[in-house]
Amino acid sequence: MQFDRNAIDAMPQRQRAHFINSLSGYKSANLIGTQDAEGHHNLAIVSSVFHLGANPPLIGLIFRPHSVERHSLENMLATGHFTLNQVNGDIYRQAHQSSARYPRQISEFAAVGLTPETLPDIKAPFVGESHLKLALQLVEVQTLCNDTELVIGEIQTVIVPATAVAADGHVAIESLDAVAVSGLDHYHLGHPLERLEYAKPDRAVRSLVPPEQQ
Amino acid sequence: MQFDRNAIDAMPQRQRAHFINSLSGYKSANLIGTQDAEGHHNLAIVSSVFHLGANPPLIGLIFRPHSVERHSLENMLATGHFTLNQVNGDIYRQAHQSSARYPRQISEFAAVGLTPETLPDIKAPFVGESHLKLALQLVEVQTLCNDTELVIGEIQTVIVPATAVAADGHVAIESLDAVAVSGLDHYHLGHPLERLEYAKPDRAVRSLVPPEQQ
Repeated sequence: MQFDRNAIDAMPQRQRAHFINSLSGYKSANLIGTQDAEGHHNLAIVSSVFHLGANPPLIGLIFRPHSVERHSLENMLATGHFTLNQVNGDIYRQAHQSSARYPRQISEFAAVGLTPETLPDIKAPFVGESHLKLALQLVEVQTLCNDTELVIGEIQTVIVPATAVAADGHVAIESLDAVAVSGLDHYHLGHPLERLEYAKPDRAVRSLVPPEQQ
Repeated sequence: MQFDRNAIDAMPQRQRAHFINSLSGYKSANLIGTQDAEGHHNLAIVSSVFHLGANPPLIGLIFRPHSVERHSLENMLATGHFTLNQVNGDIYRQAHQSSARYPRQISEFAAVGLTPETLPDIKAPFVGESHLKLALQLVEVQTLCNDTELVIGEIQTVIVPATAVAADGHVAIESLDAVAVSGLDHYHLGHPLERLEYAKPDRAVRSLVPPEQQ
């Protein structure tokens, strides 16, 4: 079926939001942890995290205008810090609930039943139940053409079980029960197919056998 | 295990690339179709597509400096058009192979065995084998702090089987066999958990039953 621009623009607002949010495919599910200048914790689910570079290690994410994550953005600007905590199969319902519009004085950790964990010198809480946790320093915030904000963070600390990290550096996120989102509200686990070798023009594609399995 | 910044910076380059690319979680796998001013087709896999807004329908993607996708970027700038074609379980190996550094005069469609399809007025080829295809108009290209390019495109046309689109607009991408990538080279199918209702502070999280199943 072909939807042209007139058909998309004619959709009721919620239907269009579901439809367009589905088109970008599977999205990583993360909880962003922040605190305000007084140390009050905030937690929000985000599905817009993307890789921006490995050296220096940079991650980008998008904040929509007037969304609940605005508390997170204000906190990041106040402290310069935030955490990203990968959502897994045991906590995706609590993670989703963190998107409710709780009043500012309420910690979403307590409201949804997740555990804040802190480290010295990092002015943002981690999610204890997450299996892959990043601490980031805010680098830049830029307003884009549709009034969304692009946030760029530099990774300072990574907490991950050593058993999930292959000798070549790849992290087996499926072994951490990592969750992906499609559209606004559909949660999925990953079902691994295979790793593929670095592609070269003069040879056929082939399966990568990680060093530790050779 | 805790990796601090010194440990990350001390990793060999390829190891760090695998490690950092894994941290952002599941990424949508898409093939970007473009053509040059003479109509020669180009195809490249991208894993950096993200939702930017539903009204107008905007998608963002990141091009790394000096990567093979630069041909795509040059073509988009020349024509103002590109397509995004969701990778599925039947074509992920061909899609991966499109990342090889083929010379400019070679069409990756022919090299990897995928079928270009065109529509009148759209100056970019679709991938025939994809089940979710978007035609986009280039809106903006911005160089970010680490010399990556942020490309913003506006969705003009969506081609998707009607059976995959729910009454509320949500697209069941798992029914299209959509593929996600983790790290640089690991491909996955989605294993659906559940859809969840819009979260509200005063009620517990609950499963969403789509209108057509009520």
